[in-house]
Amino acid sequence: MTFEKLIAGIQPIDEKKRQAAMERCDQLVKPLGSLGKLESIACRLAGIYGEVCPEIKGKAVIVMAADNGVLEEGVASAPKEITAMQTLNMVKGVTGVMVLAKQNGAQVRIVDIGVDAELQGEGLIQEKIRRGTGNIAKEPAMSREEAMAAIMVGVRQVEALKDEGVNLFGTGEMGIGNTTTSSAIVHACFPELPIASITGKGAGLTEEAFLHKQDVIRRAVEVNQVDGADPLDILAKVGGLDIAGMVGTYLGAAYYGLPVVIDGVISAAAALLASRFAPNAREYMFASHCSMEPAYQAIMERIGLEPTLYLDMRLGEGSGCPIMFSVMEFACAMQKNMETFAETAMQDDFLVDIRES
Amino acid sequence: MTFEKLIAGIQPIDEKKRQAAMERCDQLVKPLGSLGKLESIACRLAGIYGEVCPEIKGKAVIVMAADNGVLEEGVASAPKEITAMQTLNMVKGVTGVMVLAKQNGAQVRIVDIGVDAELQGEGLIQEKIRRGTGNIAKEPAMSREEAMAAIMVGVRQVEALKDEGVNLFGTGEMGIGNTTTSSAIVHACFPELPIASITGKGAGLTEEAFLHKQDVIRRAVEVNQVDGADPLDILAKVGGLDIAGMVGTYLGAAYYGLPVVIDGVISAAAALLASRFAPNAREYMFASHCSMEPAYQAIMERIGLEPTLYLDMRLGEGSGCPIMFSVMEFACAMQKNMETFAETAMQDDFLVDIRES
Repeated sequence: MTFEKLIAGIQPIDEKKRQAAMERCDQLVKPLGSLGKLESIACRLAGIYGEVCPEIKGKAVIVMAADNGVLEEGVASAPKEITAMQTLNMVKGVTGVMVLAKQNGAQVRIVDIGVDAELQGEGLIQEKIRRGTGNIAKEPAMSREEAMAAIMVGVRQVEALKDEGVNLFGTGEMGIGNTTTSSAIVHACFPELPIASITGKGAGLTEEAFLHKQDVIRRAVEVNQVDGADPLDILAKVGGLDIAGMVGTYLGAAYYGLPVVIDGVISAAAALLASRFAPNAREYMFASHCSMEPAYQAIMERIGLEPTLYLDMRLGEGSGCPIMFSVMEFACAMQKNMETFAETAMQDDFLVDIRES
Repeated sequence: MTFEKLIAGIQPIDEKKRQAAMERCDQLVKPLGSLGKLESIACRLAGIYGEVCPEIKGKAVIVMAADNGVLEEGVASAPKEITAMQTLNMVKGVTGVMVLAKQNGAQVRIVDIGVDAELQGEGLIQEKIRRGTGNIAKEPAMSREEAMAAIMVGVRQVEALKDEGVNLFGTGEMGIGNTTTSSAIVHACFPELPIASITGKGAGLTEEAFLHKQDVIRRAVEVNQVDGADPLDILAKVGGLDIAGMVGTYLGAAYYGLPVVIDGVISAAAALLASRFAPNAREYMFASHCSMEPAYQAIMERIGLEPTLYLDMRLGEGSGCPIMFSVMEFACAMQKNMETFAETAMQDDFLVDIRES
């Protein structure tokens, strides 16, 4: 598949099926709208799957692991080697996302899309575009061709998993330094926002390091003369291979008409770019937990999504996705298994009363 | 068991085990604290169960169904008969809480503690104290003896389920008019809060009906000369049998050293009273979703709990509990199945780096 075909192939969801689902939902034995977001989630899934009672059949989190050259600038408190080590811990199944996914019955696909080390591990997908990116404070992270290739890596993961029966995706990442690249993307997309309002302090940054991180973000967009209207330009110049792979996961899911869950701020930055490449892709995205990184809320407000989980999480890896999968499964159970007033044969007199209670 | 023995038997949770759990949690392969509330939930469960890696073995929502005499005042948009009808729909398994509990693998115990009708249904627990309560705008809801007996109904349900292997409880209710009794309880407990700030408009109330509802709440506390320092006085005079049964569920769970989940505003009003009867009981309680009723937030702030789910739900029935059970199961999986740095044999050099990243 070509990149052009991918973008052109992303269609809106089936609005009629979403409406039909809402009609059934409004007939269930409860006051109108009283199950809140469970209702809107179920109905949007109905529009995505084209079924009034949507069914989640297989779930997978796709984790993109890559190194970021901007680490040279001293923007993170952890060294680069952590990317490789935690990627291997994922392959071993012992990190946060692995354990939470197993609890939900979801699989995790771990992709080495750009770790700056030679990694071996059973099940690790080898799709390295290059060993780490350029230092965005001085040069582009990668070429346009590399960015497009990295996007297509994400698309191919969705395609392979879809063929195995997965119909719900989550996005995850492992890449020390990627809160800096995420903030640079947000700065390029929304130059009107103060950089301080979209930059995270993390756990280990001093006030001085925080100011330095903001300066790096500002310089990255300036030095590279980023065109804020061109998502490929933003991605290639100030993004990362992990984020590019995630953009591919979003676009691939939307292309194949399947829902995809956003994790934290890095995942949200990728979602933002994916929605710039193809505005329809947004209809396939679901927010999960509210990240504690300040750029997260800025993105969500602008792409029009709201998280449902407030867990004060800031791990990344895609760790919020399995919990959201579970919420989405509750929504599907509601839509399929609750009875309508007609099905319970409730006396007509009471229909109006209870629905408006 | 006597009521006095119940209250005297509620002990604090095992603080040493909670601390030991936090020590393990801080050694897991992730930045310190990065799994947020999953960590604090797991550690509090550790303190409750007395196990560093807590395990949820069986789950049940206990639903208390009862009618409220205050309906005479026209405070609800639904008629009294809905209480009986929805209770029977629960027994049939087709309402919100039934479907969501089944999705989570939790059981639901439906208790007729005061419905103003003779109900029959397989599995319905018959523990009727009386057919509905008095109209609190004119008289006490019930006597002190009835309130104590209703509390003991809740305690006995916990006891019976515990003997079946349940070690996690949720509280639910069905009782038209119980947002009014809940607000009256909150008004009696916190007379300094404006009544308008703790009264819900529901879906069907006009502005006039909203003002009338506030007046009923004000009169209920006044006419009955409620002693705000005596939780039994509050419960008996302006509460309801559903709420009294739920108070028993909280106190019973705490007495037997087991965790219990709060649903929406009615469930929260019962939690508030339970914590007045026995302050230690609060340590066994977990908030679930953020109710849209204004009194909910007032209660949570004052008893020091925070919801984790923002789903805009307002169904009641205990419908938020199974979703929270699922979040708590994710927390337990994290604590038990993630590896520590020592277990992964990560090189010492990187321990500090990743934990502070």
